[in-house]
Amino acid sequence: MSTNSFGRIFTVTTWGESHGPALGAVVDGCPPGVALDETMLQGWLDRRRPGQNRYTTQRQEPDRVEILSGVFEGRSTGMPIQLLIRNTDQRSKDYSEISDRFRPGHADITYWQKYGIRDYRGGGRSSARETAARVAAGGVARAALASLLPDLQITGYMVQMGPHKADRSRFDMAEITRNPFWTPDAGAAETWEGYLSQLRKSGNSVGAVVEVVASGVPAGLGAPVYGKLDTDIAAAMMSINAVKGVEIGAGFDAAMLTGEENADEIFMGRDGPEYSSNHAGGILGGISTGQQIVCRFAVKPTSSILKPRRTITRAGAQVEIVTRGRHDPCVGIRAVPVGEAMMACVLLDHVLLHRGQIGGNVGETRGRIG
Amino acid sequence: MSTNSFGRIFTVTTWGESHGPALGAVVDGCPPGVALDETMLQGWLDRRRPGQNRYTTQRQEPDRVEILSGVFEGRSTGMPIQLLIRNTDQRSKDYSEISDRFRPGHADITYWQKYGIRDYRGGGRSSARETAARVAAGGVARAALASLLPDLQITGYMVQMGPHKADRSRFDMAEITRNPFWTPDAGAAETWEGYLSQLRKSGNSVGAVVEVVASGVPAGLGAPVYGKLDTDIAAAMMSINAVKGVEIGAGFDAAMLTGEENADEIFMGRDGPEYSSNHAGGILGGISTGQQIVCRFAVKPTSSILKPRRTITRAGAQVEIVTRGRHDPCVGIRAVPVGEAMMACVLLDHVLLHRGQIGGNVGETRGRIG
Amino acid sequence: MSTNSFGRIFTVTTWGESHGPALGAVVDGCPPGVALDETMLQGWLDRRRPGQNRYTTQRQEPDRVEILSGVFEGRSTGMPIQLLIRNTDQRSKDYSEISDRFRPGHADITYWQKYGIRDYRGGGRSSARETAARVAAGGVARAALASLLPDLQITGYMVQMGPHKADRSRFDMAEITRNPFWTPDAGAAETWEGYLSQLRKSGNSVGAVVEVVASGVPAGLGAPVYGKLDTDIAAAMMSINAVKGVEIGAGFDAAMLTGEENADEIFMGRDGPEYSSNHAGGILGGISTGQQIVCRFAVKPTSSILKPRRTITRAGAQVEIVTRGRHDPCVGIRAVPVGEAMMACVLLDHVLLHRGQIGGNVGETRGRIG
Amino acid sequence: MSTNSFGRIFTVTTWGESHGPALGAVVDGCPPGVALDETMLQGWLDRRRPGQNRYTTQRQEPDRVEILSGVFEGRSTGMPIQLLIRNTDQRSKDYSEISDRFRPGHADITYWQKYGIRDYRGGGRSSARETAARVAAGGVARAALASLLPDLQITGYMVQMGPHKADRSRFDMAEITRNPFWTPDAGAAETWEGYLSQLRKSGNSVGAVVEVVASGVPAGLGAPVYGKLDTDIAAAMMSINAVKGVEIGAGFDAAMLTGEENADEIFMGRDGPEYSSNHAGGILGGISTGQQIVCRFAVKPTSSILKPRRTITRAGAQVEIVTRGRHDPCVGIRAVPVGEAMMACVLLDHVLLHRGQIGGNVGETRGRIG
Repeated sequence: MSTNSFGRIFTVTTWGESHGPALGAVVDGCPPGVALDETMLQGWLDRRRPGQNRYTTQRQEPDRVEILSGVFEGRSTGMPIQLLIRNTDQRSKDYSEISDRFRPGHADITYWQKYGIRDYRGGGRSSARETAARVAAGGVARAALASLLPDLQITGYMVQMGPHKADRSRFDMAEITRNPFWTPDAGAAETWEGYLSQLRKSGNSVGAVVEVVASGVPAGLGAPVYGKLDTDIAAAMMSINAVKGVEIGAGFDAAMLTGEENADEIFMGRDGPEYSSNHAGGILGGISTGQQIVCRFAVKPTSSILKPRRTITRAGAQVEIVTRGRHDPCVGIRAVPVGEAMMACVLLDHVLLHRGQIGGNVGETRGRIG
Repeated sequence: MSTNSFGRIFTVTTWGESHGPALGAVVDGCPPGVALDETMLQGWLDRRRPGQNRYTTQRQEPDRVEILSGVFEGRSTGMPIQLLIRNTDQRSKDYSEISDRFRPGHADITYWQKYGIRDYRGGGRSSARETAARVAAGGVARAALASLLPDLQITGYMVQMGPHKADRSRFDMAEITRNPFWTPDAGAAETWEGYLSQLRKSGNSVGAVVEVVASGVPAGLGAPVYGKLDTDIAAAMMSINAVKGVEIGAGFDAAMLTGEENADEIFMGRDGPEYSSNHAGGILGGISTGQQIVCRFAVKPTSSILKPRRTITRAGAQVEIVTRGRHDPCVGIRAVPVGEAMMACVLLDHVLLHRGQIGGNVGETRGRIG
Repeated sequence: MSTNSFGRIFTVTTWGESHGPALGAVVDGCPPGVALDETMLQGWLDRRRPGQNRYTTQRQEPDRVEILSGVFEGRSTGMPIQLLIRNTDQRSKDYSEISDRFRPGHADITYWQKYGIRDYRGGGRSSARETAARVAAGGVARAALASLLPDLQITGYMVQMGPHKADRSRFDMAEITRNPFWTPDAGAAETWEGYLSQLRKSGNSVGAVVEVVASGVPAGLGAPVYGKLDTDIAAAMMSINAVKGVEIGAGFDAAMLTGEENADEIFMGRDGPEYSSNHAGGILGGISTGQQIVCRFAVKPTSSILKPRRTITRAGAQVEIVTRGRHDPCVGIRAVPVGEAMMACVLLDHVLLHRGQIGGNVGETRGRIG
Repeated sequence: MSTNSFGRIFTVTTWGESHGPALGAVVDGCPPGVALDETMLQGWLDRRRPGQNRYTTQRQEPDRVEILSGVFEGRSTGMPIQLLIRNTDQRSKDYSEISDRFRPGHADITYWQKYGIRDYRGGGRSSARETAARVAAGGVARAALASLLPDLQITGYMVQMGPHKADRSRFDMAEITRNPFWTPDAGAAETWEGYLSQLRKSGNSVGAVVEVVASGVPAGLGAPVYGKLDTDIAAAMMSINAVKGVEIGAGFDAAMLTGEENADEIFMGRDGPEYSSNHAGGILGGISTGQQIVCRFAVKPTSSILKPRRTITRAGAQVEIVTRGRHDPCVGIRAVPVGEAMMACVLLDHVLLHRGQIGGNVGETRGRIG
C-alpha cells in the first residue's frame, strides 16, 4: 500500500507538492448516495485557508477544491472521489535560497539524503500545504458520517501555545470560532495574541497543543490489536506535519495515576453504561466505549523562521540560514481543522470496518448490557 | 489487511488468547539467510517473562517459543516464520468473576459490546500476554537487523513511575539491567522500589513512562506522508496494551519551544551532517536524520486491582469488583522489552521498504552532502 | 501486506512447510458468533486428504486440524483463528536426491535462485501440502457464510483430465462424490480411471481442468476496478499450486463469440432480473449478477514423476532426475476441494467488504429494479 | 486498501469516469531519479488512443496526459505521481437511452444493483476509458524499468479474433505495428480485416485473445504463495475491462499434457540455466525462471452493439436495446497496450519487492548455480 495512503475501507491517498500545478486526494470506499458537492468541502477548506488573519501565513491561496470524479448529480457513487486543489500563489523566488541550504528542523535534508532529488520549492511534498488535501478528504468523511452517526460532533481547538496553557475551567465551546486561535478559552486567546504578535515581529515561531474531541461515537468501534481505534488515531495525527506527540484521554498524565484513580467506574444509565470519568479518552482495549473520544497532539514550532540558524549547504559548506518566505508563526493554529479532518476519516473507516466484520446497524452493539 | 497485523514488507500477525492452548505470531517478509534459532528468541522473551521479581505478576509462564516454519538448518528461508508459545499456567478459576463483571479501565466491556462474545479468561485477546508474541517477532527483526544495520542499538528503559521521574543527569545505561525496573537511574530505582512495594501491598497499581532509543540508524529511513517513520513508530507503540500516549524527540515539550530553540542546527562532520541537539528525535519530515531515534510512551496503571471499584454486570446490575488474580502492579516494567521489540520491527520494515523503492545498500544515502 | 496472505477484511495467512513440524493458517476478520469447531473443519480437510484411493499420493497424512485461538465455547470471537495441522508422515529420505537436483517444472530451481536457501524436503513451502491450510481456512469461511448466504452452494468438480473432457450432457451433480475424481460425469470417471491407472503405472502424471460453481450468491458483490470479484477469484485460483490458467463464465470461448451471441439477455423474473444465458459466469463489471458464479482453472501435471528428465545440479552438472517419493499422478483431483475453499474465502471477504462500504443486509441490493 | 488500487510498493490507484471532467491515476512508490516527462507517457497513450482507424471507436479523445506531481526538473522525486487525462469528447446525448435500460453483458445492471446510483454516461467508471489511466501508469513503470531491467522487452499482440487464430509459424514481431490489430501474423491481419469490417457493418462485435510476452526478466521475481508473479499477473489482466480468462505459459493446454511432456528440461548454459521448452511461461512456483514470461488473456466482445437485444428497464419493463454510441467492434485491439502496461506495472512492483526483501542488485540471484 502506498505510503501516501491511509485507511482500510475508506482510504485516502494524497498527492502533490506545494508549488506544483496542483495537489489533492483520491478518496475511495465512500458509501454511495452521500450528498456531496464542492461547496460543502469548501466550507472545511476555508477554515484551514492561510492568510485569514495576521497569525497565519500571508500566502494567498484560495484553496478552491474541485471534485473530478465519484460524484454524480450531487451524490457519491461509491467510486473513487478525486479532489483537486490548484496551486495559484507560487512565488518560487521566495524559496530560491533553500534549494541549496537545509533549514534546521525541516525535512529539507532528509528528503535530499533519501531521494537525492527534491522539489525544494516551498517544501515540496513536505509542505504543510499537503494538509489541504486532508481537510478536503475529511469533508467527504464528514458528509458520509452525517447519516451514519447523526449525533457525531468533532471539535478541535488549541489548548496550549508555547508555555501558555488554556484554562479548562474557562472553556466555552462557543468561543472557538470567535478568536483566531480556535481556542475555547477567551482568556487564553488574549494572552496568546500578545505573545504571538511579539514572536512574529521578532521572526520567531512557537509550538502548540491541539485537542480534538469526538462525541456521539457509539460503543464498539475499533479492533484488536494493531487496528485499535487509538492506534489509528495516533498514526493519523502523528502523520500531520510538525506533530511530535499524540495522546488519548489522560495520555501522559495516566503515567502518574494509580489504578484506583485511573479506573473510570461504570454505572448503569438509562441508555447503557455510564462512566464516572473519562481517563480512557473514550477507548478501552482499542475499542470505543461510547464516551467522548479525546485526543491531543503536540505541534512543534515552524522551522522556517527569520532568526538566523547555522546549517550546511549541499556542498557541505557551513552557513547561516534565514527563511524569509511567508510562514505561520504558530503552525498549530491551522492544524486544528486538519486534526478534525483526520479524526473524521479514521472514524468513518472504523464505522465501515465495523459493519463489514460485525454487521448490523451502526451504533447497535452485539453484546447487550442490562 | 488483518487488524492483527502490522508492517509493509516485514509483516507481523499475532494471534491467540491468554488462556487458550497457545498464542504466537506469523512473521513474514524476513530476508533469507538470517541466522535464527529458538535460543536467540528465547533470550528476548526471558526479559519480558513474568514472575522474575516481586514487581511483576507472579503468574509462572515459561513463555517457551517454538519456531514451526520458515527456518531451515539454522537460517531463515524467506518464508513465513510461525512462532508459537504455549500457555501453561492457566488457572482459569482466578478469572471466574470477570466473566460477568466488567473491570473498570479494562477492555472487558468494549469487547463484549462489540463482539457479543469474548474469551473472558485472563483478558483473552486483550491480555498483555499478547505482547509475548511481539517480543518473539522483535527477536526475528533484530536477527535480521544484525547484518543490515550492524551499528544498531535499541535500548528501552523506564523514565517515570507514577509521579516519580528518573533524573537524566544520573543516567548510566549500564544500570538498566541491574534493577528490576529497567531504569538507567539507580537512584530512581531505589525510590520506585519503596513506592511500588507500598502500592502492591495495598492492592493498587501505577502508570509509567518508557523511553526507547535506537542508535546506529542511518539517515533516509521513512517515507512521506502517512508512512512516516514516526507515524509507524507511534502506531506501533500505541498498539501496545495500556499505552495512552506516544512522543518523538522533544514530544509534547516541543509545544513549549520557539522555532529558534527547537531547530537542531546542522554542522558538517567528518562522516556527514551533525546536529547541535536532537529535539527532532532523529526524524525530520518522517525520515531519519542519522541521529538517535528517541521515542517515549505512557503506560496507564493496570486495571486489575484489589481496590474495590464500582461497576456493572452484563445484566446491568450495579456491583463492586475486586480483581484478585496475579497482576503486575506496574505493567510499564514489562512494556520495556515490548517497546524495544516494536521498534525493531518498524525499523526492519523501513529498511526493507527503503531498499525496495530506493535501492542501494542500507545506510547509503542517495543525496550526497559535502 | 504479507505475500502469504490474501483478503481484505476476511484475511488468510498461511505458513509452514511440507516437512517441518506443522503448517497452518491464521484467519482473521471472521464475524463473531459463528458456530465453529474442529470437527466441522475436519470434514473439509478429509475430502482433500491424500491416500484415500490409488489416484492420489500414498503419503499418509491424517491432516488433523487444531483450532488454537479465536474460538470460545464453540463460537468464533472475531479474533484471529489459528488453524494448525501437524506434519506426521515425514519420510525425509524420500527427498534426499532433490536437495541437490532441480526437478523440471518444479519450484526447486526458482526458490533456490531467489532465496539462496530452501527447505527442499518435500518441496518445502512450495509443496501442495500448503493447500491443506487453505481448505481449513475455507472451512471457516463456509461456517461464516452459512448464516450470511444461507442459499449458497459451492460445488467443485473435474471437467477434464488430460485430453479427456467430461460431457456436460451427462452431468449429474450427485455423481461427484461417487467417483475418485470428483466429476459429475460418471462416464468420464470410467474413462479417466483406465487412463490414469496407465499413467500412474508408467510413472507419469497428467493435467486437469477443475470447475467451481457458486450458486445462491446475491447480486452486488464485487467492486471496481482492481477489486473485482472475478479479479479476486482469478488471483485466488492462480495462487493454487500448479494452476496455469483461470477463466470465468465463457472464459476463453468468449473470444470466439460475437457481441450478439455473448450478451446474456435480461428478463424480468418474479424475484428480480433473470438471464437467457450465463456467458458472464455470474459477474458483470466485476460485480455479481445473482446468477451462478462459474470459474474454471487448469492444473498442470505433477512435476515429480518417475520418468527420467534431464536437469542440472546446484553445481551446474548435467544429470537426469527421477522423483521417487509418493506423488499424485493427477494433482488436479485434490485441487477440487482447494478450489472450493478459495471460492468460499473470496466470497466471504466480498460479503464483508460489501456490507462495510454499502451497508444493509446481505443480499439486499441498493438499486431497486421493478 | 482501495479496490481501485493495485501493487505493493509500486502502487497504482485509478479514478474517474468516462464522461466526468477527467480521469487519471496516482502512481506511488516509483524510485526517485527516473527520467520522466509527459511526452514519454503520451507515446504509450497514443498507441491506445481511439479513432485511429476504422476498427476502433470513432470517439475522438486526444487522451493528453498531464503530470501534476512527483516529477521535478524531468525526473521522478519518489513522491506520488498524479497523471491526469481530461475528458474532452463528451457527447452525453449518445448515452441518454442507457440511463434507464441495462445493456446485456454490461456492468450497467450490477453497478445499479450494488450502488443504487451510477454515472451512466458512457459507462461511467466501468468504461474502457479507465484503461487510459493504466496505460499512463504503465508508462511510468516502463520508465523506471528502463534502468532496472535494461534488457526488458514487453510485447503485446493479438493472437485470435473471434474464431480466427493467428498462425505462430508466420509470426514476425516486426509486423505488429504494421497492421491495425497488433498482430505478428500478417496473414491473420488480412483475414481479420475482412471479418471485422463485416461485423462492424452489421453492428456486431467480437472477442479476441491477446498475448503479452516479457523477455529480459531475470530469475527470482515473485513470491510464495499468494503474491506469486503469475497470481499478480492474472489479477492484473483479469481486472482489465471485458477480460474473461487468463493463462500463463501452456495455460489451459497444460491440462492436456503429461508430466513428461510438460516438464521443461534444464540444461547448463553459459550464463545460467537454460530450458528445453517454456510450458511454464517463465514462472515456476510463482517465481520467474529467467525465461520469457508468457501470458494470454481472453477479451469478450463489446456489449454495446447495434444488434437489438432484449433487456429490462429500471422499472422492470421488458424492452429491446440498441446501443448507438461509437464503440469498438473488437475491444481486444485496444486491450493490447493495456495488457503491456499492466505487465510493466506488475514487473516493476516485483522488482522493488524483491530488492526490498532480498536485497542485492536486480538480476542478481541469491542461489548460485554452477
